[in-house]
Amino acid sequence: MKQTLSIVKIGGNLIEDNAALNSFLTAFSELSGLKILVHGGGKKASEVLGQLGITPQMTNGRRITDQDTLDVVTMVYGGLINKNLVARLQALGCNALGMSGADANSIQARKRPIKEVDYGFAGDVANVNAEKLNQILQIGLTPVFCALTHNGKGQLLNTNADTIASEIAISLSTNYHIVLYYCFELPGVLEDIKDPKSIISKINGDSYQKLVDKGIIAQGMLPKMHNAFASLKNGVREVRIGNLNVFQKEKDNYTTLVI
Amino acid sequence: MKQTLSIVKIGGNLIEDNAALNSFLTAFSELSGLKILVHGGGKKASEVLGQLGITPQMTNGRRITDQDTLDVVTMVYGGLINKNLVARLQALGCNALGMSGADANSIQARKRPIKEVDYGFAGDVANVNAEKLNQILQIGLTPVFCALTHNGKGQLLNTNADTIASEIAISLSTNYHIVLYYCFELPGVLEDIKDPKSIISKINGDSYQKLVDKGIIAQGMLPKMHNAFASLKNGVREVRIGNLNVFQKEKDNYTTLVI
Repeated sequence: MKQTLSIVKIGGNLIEDNAALNSFLTAFSELSGLKILVHGGGKKASEVLGQLGITPQMTNGRRITDQDTLDVVTMVYGGLINKNLVARLQALGCNALGMSGADANSIQARKRPIKEVDYGFAGDVANVNAEKLNQILQIGLTPVFCALTHNGKGQLLNTNADTIASEIAISLSTNYHIVLYYCFELPGVLEDIKDPKSIISKINGDSYQKLVDKGIIAQGMLPKMHNAFASLKNGVREVRIGNLNVFQKEKDNYTTLVI
Repeated sequence: MKQTLSIVKIGGNLIEDNAALNSFLTAFSELSGLKILVHGGGKKASEVLGQLGITPQMTNGRRITDQDTLDVVTMVYGGLINKNLVARLQALGCNALGMSGADANSIQARKRPIKEVDYGFAGDVANVNAEKLNQILQIGLTPVFCALTHNGKGQLLNTNADTIASEIAISLSTNYHIVLYYCFELPGVLEDIKDPKSIISKINGDSYQKLVDKGIIAQGMLPKMHNAFASLKNGVREVRIGNLNVFQKEKDNYTTLVI
């Protein structure tokens, strides 16, 4: 029987809310077995860009990463957020190891080709180094990934954290029974966005399409769901979407994706 | 016979000079056997502090680290400089792993006690986790340390990179034959600062004191030499001071410290 590996993605809103982050980190550190944390940080990056007089450039909700922006996200994701998360996890007894995709050559990416939009130094994941990640897990460390990868030629690339989580999950699914958690500010995918009790407890491929057609799954949730279903189709055993409740045993407390 | 482990410290001036840095990284990646890189970055940190309108505060050549300054050095040391060094080493075939002392709980420090000066979030190294560092080396990774540690209670601390290098060296000297390299812009300790050919090829405890008395070793070199002799007294086999020449075999090309 394969060992269970939990891969947990947290978004920027959670990182910015100190009380919520404390609760999250405590719950994460108490999660038994092997685990990996993946974090975003776009809100803080936009704040630092503003302080430096650089206007964040976005198209269709995606950041355009010019050289100055790359330097700032490298500072904020790889430095400020990552190192503080690691230090706080250490205080909770979790032996965290902060990483970008360049570290241990863990995630190589390709610079996104220029089509209608030039996204600049944005990377699409090309390869996850499952062997090295496995060795890091087996010496008792908990990788904490920021949303940066590299192209293997010395260039760092800004990469969507949801995608990093699902690509790591797929890559390690040969070795482990993977449970992938997407944690954000809502308790799950909601039938009615205004009613936190209206959690849709299970979504499969069919019902997903209906929810998209009805407009219940829209905007920022679309790429998250796309990544989630892709990971299920490629070996990941379970995907849970919600906030801290994803760590509970009651299966109706969060949204579970199935195929 | 113990395996050789090279521990190499590079300073901020080298990091700022792109051509010199390229030469250095190539030489470092070609160094055979196990190795660890430790880097500073104070110049770049001062530049970013300036861009953010924060005046760097220094006393006796040491930075005073208030909360804003700690955030900036965490961004610059742990993010911008560390991740770019790692990506560039990966391109050279060196499987680098960027780390602060919080990562893998590798270096714990104590916040420096307030005496005449309150240095703020500055840390004095208390413990190096030799066992975990050893495991990381043995799975084929090359740690790249920035000048940050933690107190084990969630607090990051700004810590002198020369000290980090010597403390790691001492701690791993039980397991390895350690050669410690301090690389900076000069080819060694010079008899005449204006003559790069006047390298003092060997310094021992006695001649060190004479060089201090004559004023040849002064200012920024004093803590470096202090760290170097401390590491020799505690198990480190050899210390070399210079620039790229420290990687050469001719022993008169750089300064060797002996006890």
